[in-house]
Amino acid sequence: MKLNRSTDMALRIAMVTAAAEVRTTVDELATQLSLPRSHVAKVVQRLQRLGVLVTIRGRSGGVAFAEHAGELTVGQVVRAFEGDDEVVSCEQPLCPLAGDCRLRGQLRRAQAAFLAVLDDVRLGELAHGSAGPLLLTLGAPEVHS
Amino acid sequence: MKLNRSTDMALRIAMVTAAAEVRTTVDELATQLSLPRSHVAKVVQRLQRLGVLVTIRGRSGGVAFAEHAGELTVGQVVRAFEGDDEVVSCEQPLCPLAGDCRLRGQLRRAQAAFLAVLDDVRLGELAHGSAGPLLLTLGAPEVHS
Repeated sequence: MKLNRSTDMALRIAMVTAAAEVRTTVDELATQLSLPRSHVAKVVQRLQRLGVLVTIRGRSGGVAFAEHAGELTVGQVVRAFEGDDEVVSCEQPLCPLAGDCRLRGQLRRAQAAFLAVLDDVRLGELAHGSAGPLLLTLGAPEVHS
Repeated sequence: MKLNRSTDMALRIAMVTAAAEVRTTVDELATQLSLPRSHVAKVVQRLQRLGVLVTIRGRSGGVAFAEHAGELTVGQVVRAFEGDDEVVSCEQPLCPLAGDCRLRGQLRRAQAAFLAVLDDVRLGELAHGSAGPLLLTLGAPEVHS
């Protein structure tokens, strides 16, 4: 099964900013991660509203991992970006079994199990270990006004 | 997260054929489930190779749920149709953290938890209960040669 593109981007952005010791910018993130700038900007805004990032406007502005965001979980980020959609769509096309089906409940249980694993993984844990030094290298950009 | 279109179709086809008391055909399935005939034909073929369905050629031919397929699990069907892809793609675009990242292992654990739930759900269980009579109504087509 697949996570959507925005969720994928949100997780990459969270990981890179978590390990960076200095602020970065939307442009830097777009370059480092080879992602479209406009989409990065939207994901950064949503991560800011979630409390994962802080964004600072102006000449010395930028994007930074929020101070206590290390305590937030991967599960929280995934839920926010995946939305409430179910694993399959009973409406597209309209399934004749919709509303009267045992599979749907089982898929919800499976989805809950998936998220439960990620609810135990904190964003702060992702940047440690062997990935740490690499992330720090990536995360030391110049601040652009 | 989402299952792919073929997996979704495979599960619907498995449920409808599991409850049908008579053979059906690719055309009947495509009509009942409002799905494209050519795609249904491909999914039926794959389900036949998996042992979920039997297909009978010729004038009195058709498609039927295989005799012991009730013992097969939703997990087996999902694994077969989802393939070995991971939940996110570290290569598209190439993530600078690829190969040195803690998130990937956690996503694999989450995916394993998802499949573990479905490994305990047998195809034969999906057609029982209140969905039974509805499925039998849908599953009594004429046999076309």
